[in-house]
Formats: sequence, C-alpha cells, structure tokens
Amino acid sequence: MRLADLAAAAGAELHGDGEVVIKEPETLQQAGPGQIAFLSNPRYRKYLAQTRASAVIISPKDLEHCFTNALVADDPYLAWARVLRCFVEEGRPPAGVHPAAVVDPAAQVDESAVVEAGSVVAAGARIGANAWIGPNCVVGRDVVIGDDSRLVASVTVLDRVRIGCRCLLHPGVVVGSDGFGLARNGERWEKVPQLGSVILEDEVEVGANTTIDRGAVHDTILRRGAKLDNLIQVAHNVEIGENTAIAACTGISGSTRIGANCTLAGGVGLVGHIELADNVHVTGFSMVTHSLKEPGVYSSGLAAVPHDQWKRSAVRVKRLEEMARKIRELEKRVEQLREEKKTG
Amino acid sequence: MRLADLAAAAGAELHGDGEVVIKEPETLQQAGPGQIAFLSNPRYRKYLAQTRASAVIISPKDLEHCFTNALVADDPYLAWARVLRCFVEEGRPPAGVHPAAVVDPAAQVDESAVVEAGSVVAAGARIGANAWIGPNCVVGRDVVIGDDSRLVASVTVLDRVRIGCRCLLHPGVVVGSDGFGLARNGERWEKVPQLGSVILEDEVEVGANTTIDRGAVHDTILRRGAKLDNLIQVAHNVEIGENTAIAACTGISGSTRIGANCTLAGGVGLVGHIELADNVHVTGFSMVTHSLKEPGVYSSGLAAVPHDQWKRSAVRVKRLEEMARKIRELEKRVEQLREEKKTG
Amino acid sequence: MRLADLAAAAGAELHGDGEVVIKEPETLQQAGPGQIAFLSNPRYRKYLAQTRASAVIISPKDLEHCFTNALVADDPYLAWARVLRCFVEEGRPPAGVHPAAVVDPAAQVDESAVVEAGSVVAAGARIGANAWIGPNCVVGRDVVIGDDSRLVASVTVLDRVRIGCRCLLHPGVVVGSDGFGLARNGERWEKVPQLGSVILEDEVEVGANTTIDRGAVHDTILRRGAKLDNLIQVAHNVEIGENTAIAACTGISGSTRIGANCTLAGGVGLVGHIELADNVHVTGFSMVTHSLKEPGVYSSGLAAVPHDQWKRSAVRVKRLEEMARKIRELEKRVEQLREEKKTG
Repeated sequence: MRLADLAAAAGAELHGDGEVVIKEPETLQQAGPGQIAFLSNPRYRKYLAQTRASAVIISPKDLEHCFTNALVADDPYLAWARVLRCFVEEGRPPAGVHPAAVVDPAAQVDESAVVEAGSVVAAGARIGANAWIGPNCVVGRDVVIGDDSRLVASVTVLDRVRIGCRCLLHPGVVVGSDGFGLARNGERWEKVPQLGSVILEDEVEVGANTTIDRGAVHDTILRRGAKLDNLIQVAHNVEIGENTAIAACTGISGSTRIGANCTLAGGVGLVGHIELADNVHVTGFSMVTHSLKEPGVYSSGLAAVPHDQWKRSAVRVKRLEEMARKIRELEKRVEQLREEKKTG
Repeated sequence: MRLADLAAAAGAELHGDGEVVIKEPETLQQAGPGQIAFLSNPRYRKYLAQTRASAVIISPKDLEHCFTNALVADDPYLAWARVLRCFVEEGRPPAGVHPAAVVDPAAQVDESAVVEAGSVVAAGARIGANAWIGPNCVVGRDVVIGDDSRLVASVTVLDRVRIGCRCLLHPGVVVGSDGFGLARNGERWEKVPQLGSVILEDEVEVGANTTIDRGAVHDTILRRGAKLDNLIQVAHNVEIGENTAIAACTGISGSTRIGANCTLAGGVGLVGHIELADNVHVTGFSMVTHSLKEPGVYSSGLAAVPHDQWKRSAVRVKRLEEMARKIRELEKRVEQLREEKKTG
Repeated sequence: MRLADLAAAAGAELHGDGEVVIKEPETLQQAGPGQIAFLSNPRYRKYLAQTRASAVIISPKDLEHCFTNALVADDPYLAWARVLRCFVEEGRPPAGVHPAAVVDPAAQVDESAVVEAGSVVAAGARIGANAWIGPNCVVGRDVVIGDDSRLVASVTVLDRVRIGCRCLLHPGVVVGSDGFGLARNGERWEKVPQLGSVILEDEVEVGANTTIDRGAVHDTILRRGAKLDNLIQVAHNVEIGENTAIAACTGISGSTRIGANCTLAGGVGLVGHIELADNVHVTGFSMVTHSLKEPGVYSSGLAAVPHDQWKRSAVRVKRLEEMARKIRELEKRVEQLREEKKTG
C-alpha cells in the first residue's frame, strides 16, 4: 500500500515520501519500517520523536516533532480509522447460497448476496444486494435485510424484523425476541403477546450476544447510525436515537426513549418509560430512574476502594439518616447555647 | 374478529355492539376504526373520551367516560393480554422433522412435534407432543422437552436437562452449561465436575441469551411458572420459586434459593448460598448479600444525577467514616460546653 | 468404583475399607450407602457423625468425628473435585467429522478430533488432536483449536483466533467479535476496523454466552489457566493473567490488564486502560476506575436493605455535600463559642 494512497483514503495531508510502501498498521511504541502508526492521546507523544515507523498519522501541532513521513489530519484517530479500513481482509465468500444453507423457496435472496453454510432463511424473507449472512444464522419469516448488511455468524433475526442497509450484527445477536410482557391473573403470570417488531435503520451496529426485543404493539427502533456494544439488553418499545453509542453490559427497560448523539458507558441501567434528551451522556455503572431532559453528563457509579475502608463507608451509607439526625440535633444544641449566651 | 368473540376470550363484559369487526390492537392514543385498545394506566385516561377506536378494554369505573364499544374487566391489562392472544400468528410449520435437521435415531420425537432446519437432537432425547424446536437449536443426550414447549431458535439445551410442558425458551438461551466450580491446587485451578442437571418445571419462560447452569451434584431448578427475561445468569444449584419473575441483566450466584411470587428488577445481583422468602421484591440495580427472610421490598440502587454533583457525593461516600468522626467530636465538644456552662 | 481407586485418584489417604463400592457422589446431608460425600465448610460438620454415606472426604482434624470410611486430604474440596472427575460421563462421540458438519477442504482436522453435526469449519482452520467441536459451532478462517480443547455447542470462534490446548468453551461463547471502536467524523460514527485477534492460552475455560472481542491492532489475551464464568464481556486488547478467575456478569473495558491469580466476583465492572496487579481481588458489584497496583481486596458494592430505609439513605447520598457543609459550619460555631468563652 503506497503512503500516498493511504493519505487519500484518510483525507489527510501527506508530508514526506508518498511512494513508501506500508505493509501494516502498528502502535506508535512498536511500529518499525513498513508500518504506520498514529498519535492521538497526548500521553503517547513521547514516542513520536524516536519512532522507527515508516509513517505516522498526527495532528498539525505535532508535525514539528515528527521525523518520519506523516499524514496530518485534524482528527488523527478518525484518519487512523480510515487507514485501517485499507488493511481489512474481509474474507467474503463469492456471492450465492451455500449448499448447506437452507433457504425457503418463498424467500428472496439477491443474487449478489452471500448466505453461508448452516444458515436458515424462512419464507418471505428478503436479503438485499451484497448482504452477507454468515454461518449458522437464522433469518425468520418476512424479515428484511437491507443492502450491504452483514450478519457475521450465529445471529438470530426473528419474524418480521426489518434491518436497514450497511448494518453489522455480530455473533450471538438476537433481534426480535419477545418483550417481557406479563399480566398477573391472581395466581399466575399470563403472557402478554408481543405483536410489534424491531426496526434497525441504516448503519446500525450491534455487538456480540446483545438482545433486542420486539415491541408489544408498536416497534422497537434503533435509529440510523446507532452503535451498540456486546451483551446489551434492549427491551420492548425502546427507541434509540441517531448516532447514539452504547457500551457493553447496559440494560434499557421497556418503552424508554434515548435521544440522538447520546453515549451510555458500560454497565448502565435505564428504567422503563423515561426519556433521555439528545446529547445526554451517562457514565459507567449508573442507574437512570428519571427522564433526563437536559443535555449533559450524568452519573451514579461508585469506585472501588480497599475493602476494609469500603466496609466502613457502606455501613455508614445505611445509617445516613441517623447521621443527618445527629447533625440536626447538634445544630439545635449549638443554637441553644448561643441563645443562652446572648440572653445570659 | 367479532368483538363478542374477543369479549369471551378476555372474560370481559361486553358493552355495545358485539358484531363490530376488530382487525387489530392499537394503543389508546392511536387507535381508530377497526382497532381495539385498552386503558389501565390512569395517565392515559385523558385519551378515552375522544378515542376513535372501535372498542376499548376498561375497568368498570371508566365506563361512564367511554363513548365507544367497551369490554369491561376488573383488570383491563389482563383482559388485553387475552385479547392480544387472539391476534397472534405463530407461523408454526407442519408437524415433523425438517430434512435439514439432524435427529439421532435413538431420540424420540412425538409425531405431532416440529423440529426445524439446522437443529441437532442427540440420542436419548425425548421431544413431547406439539413441542416445537425452532431452527439451529441443540438438544443434548437424554434431554426431555415436555408437551407444547417451544425452543424458538438457536437454543442450546445440554445433556440430561428436563424441560416441562408449555415452556418457552427464546433464542440464544443456554440450559445446562457447567456451573463455575473450581478448586485451587496451590498453583492452579482444577475443575470441579458438574454432575447435576437442570429442571424447568411447566410454564417456565426464559428470555434471549439467558444462561442456566447445571448443578454440581443436585439439580438447578426453576419452579412452575417462573419467568425470566433476557441476559440473566442462573448459577449452579439455584432454585427459583413458582411464579417468580426476574428482569433482564440479573445475576444469581450458586446455591441461592428464591421463593415463590418474588420479583427481581433489572440488573440485580444475588450472592450465593442465601435464601429469599416468598413475596420478596428487589428493585433495580440492587445487590443482595444476605438472606431476606421477610416479604417486602428491598433496594440498594442509586439514581444518576448530574456528574459534577455526583463527583462530590462519591468523594464524600468514601470519607463517611471521617464525617462520622467529626460528628462524634462535635457532640463531645458541645456536651463539654454545656457542662462547663452548668458548672461555670 | 472401589474406594481405594478413588483415594488414589484424589491423592487422599484411605481410612477404612478400600473395597467398598461407590456408585455416586452426594451431599453430606443426603448421602447414604454406596455414596461418597465431602466435608469442607465447617457449618456442615454437624452432619458428619451421623452420616450414612459409605465414605466421606475430610480433613485430618475431622477424622476423629468420622464413623464411616474416610478419604483424608488437606484440602477436601480439591480431593472432592478429583473424585467427581471419576464419575463424569462425557458422552464423547467417536472421532471424525459428522456428515452434517461442513468442513472446508482447506481446513485441517486431526483424525482423532470430533466435529459434530451442524458445525461449520472454514478454510485454513486447524483442529488439534482429540479436540471436540460440539454441534452447531462456527470455526472461522485460519482459527487454531489446540489439542484436547472442547467447544461444547453453539460456540462461535471467528477468523484467526488461536485457542490453546485443554480449553473449554461453553455454549454461546463468542471469541473474536469486533472490538467497539468508533471514531466521530463530526456528524456520525465511523467504524475503526479491528485487525487484531484473540489468543486463549492453554487450560482457559469460558462460560456460556461470554464474549471476547478481538484486539484493534494487537491481540486480546487470556493467559494460561484463566477461568471465566457466564455472560462476561472482555473488550478489545484486554489481557487477563494466569489463573485469574472471573465470575458472571462482569464487564472489562478495552486495553485493561488484569494480573495473575486475581479474582473478580460477579457483576464487577472495570473501566478501560487500567492495570490490576497480581493477586487483586474485587468483590461483587464493584466498579474499578483506577489501576490497583497493590494486591488486596477492593470493593464498592452496596447491599440491599428494606426499601423505605434505602430511599432515605439514597436521598442523603445525593446531599452529602450539604451534610459536609453543615458539619463545617457547626465546627466553626462551636469553635467560636469556645473562643468567646475563653475570652469572655
């Protein structure tokens, strides 16, 4: 790969020799000849001057400290992402349905699409142009998989779910499982049928083993460009806004609506029936119990400390009411002492 | 669907025209002609008077504000669940084993059961009447799947597990994986074999990607009517009582016993070897570290607030011991001042 | 199984009749003739004297209270693990590739290995001696599965991942999914390709539905003897040290390094780019936000209490800053009173 080509792919300014051949990307600390690295986090700036990399992606302000070929970009990490794309070997099989896949005759698979071995595609499903259904996936009845979307492997998409274009679903993802709807009949739970479906708009990415339930009456919706990490639970009738990114192990309860351009860090929990405005950011391990109507950063996670210290704090948390009472009591007594002093 | 038939299915009292044809359910806000809605949550009562729905399911007290056909029931949500059931289109394939399923000759599959493409059924397994094994499931050796139970798709049930009747297992569910048993031999961990199994009694529902480990010596047990949401971990030798419902992202550690008619909200964690009495309810994001012997509601989750405010609280939590010491000190000094005053 | 043989397997000292036949293991409370039990936890010591078990595994100090045959070992639980191993019936099918498996002609499967029905093995994959690929697994291109390793069922191992020897991967495990790498281009997220892979060294165990992402440039690494429970998230470029054990529902963010011989309890969360030293132990439901450079036990989880009590504490936590201010104020006033007294 010529460096000049990588510069073009990255939309970066080339400084140095565009003819140098780059064989692979590497971290700044470890890169050597034939490799390209990037510098974005200032704590790694110390590695720049001595790097043996054939090229480095940097921001304009770092150019004076760079003694190798450089691709200069305002956002080096974004340029890095684009350079990496040039090195992806996708291993996409030739178009067509593998003989060990099972495609119902009443399904439509575009002739440019791939369906790998072990996948089962039901009647009424429509697989778009250049879509790629990896091995051992399940595509239910009347499902739509948009153009250029990929189900990596072992993905399960149930009846009537609609997946947009250029979506990417990682292994173990389940889309369209029943929402958790139960009505009590005195003695027992009766199932509330879940008749809605799920819509993933274009360019949605869903991480491994994440689950997205179908809506009760209407649909669960992930808007264009929403990005979900692994092991996330999206309950029925949730709506996730455009370009919102959600980290692993987060759970979103039913009917909650998350705005556009939000971020939820890992291990977050959202109760049901609330709304998060656009540009809300929730830090790790926080529980959100009320609507957050203003953009901003919200938190409730506590950081680990040595266990003995924590044990004492945890006991105190349970007794905060008592502590508050003691303070009120002290305030009263001090006031009394002052009054007595004045009047005495 | 005639409204009179829906009334009968719901066990509700018909007010109005039983001959009106209902084509589908809809929410109260959006329902129009040919649609049925329900009113249960009082915050939606404002939509009742003007609804254009052909019928509404309501409680007796709302009847006077209803100007369309009504199904009157003491619990409208329960009646709604039953009405919805009339609109379910299951898409159940005809009975029999798909040619692309692999059923060991030493397995017994009832002739009314369905085994879809890509599923693998091992020797000794018994699949009951009207059971439905969806695509790409695994049913291990000597597994029992009771009558009318369904494995939706991509479900894995390992050797010797027994599933009751009318159970519903959603995609990605794993039943019978090894419990996490390890013994330290000084230097390394040695595996403690997990020889027990898992029993799901009748009418148990298990959500997508939930995992239920087999017992070490005895069995892990989910009692009749237990309902589990998605991404829940049930460790070895856990017992979950009848009609207990557990929301997503909850983890239950080994040998813990949960009583009947309990509810655990989302993201709850239970340590091992404890017992929860019947009718215990745990709110979201709580950790339970001791047995809860009394019915009631228990909590330890903290709700997110603006990050700057939280940062100050979180620092204070770590220093609660210091705060308590200051209070004790103040109490002493105030007491001293009072004493001095008296004696002075 | 003769008791003398079990003693040899366990490395325990036989006291009593080595010829007695043991049919199965059982708990100490319930064991009877033909059964073997163990005593490790002191709270069960009361059952020892009256047990009807044919043999009991005990520590030397309990021998005087034992009136049946005994296997004496310094660590009875470890001896128990080894005895249990004698009772495992693995159900391993005969070597070979099932006709309903799909193995690419350019994959190498050792002739002693098993590949069960429904599994798909891609070109360039190498399956080692005695390895066992259960039903409905996916083994990607150029994957290496070491000797004696087992993928139980429905496991997905993506391209280029290397699994060591004697590893055990439970159903639903995903290894090699893309790390969650995103770069913002002003308006939208662009994917940062994940070009690294995953290495599982020898004797690694991974629980059901756990996900392990591939590295961005370098590899995600689980060192020899690491043991992971179910539903754990391991993000890109994480390194987990030798013999570290991690309980269910834990999430580890990107580039974090965990030392050797650590334990993380259930529901723990680790932020990215931190380091945990060897022998660090984190208790359940704790969030780790900074590197932990000293061995020891760390915590931040709060235990559930009755809801009404908790509600009052939770409100107070939010107002801790106010409480601290009141204390400072009181300190000032009390100091003032004392000063006035002195000077008065």
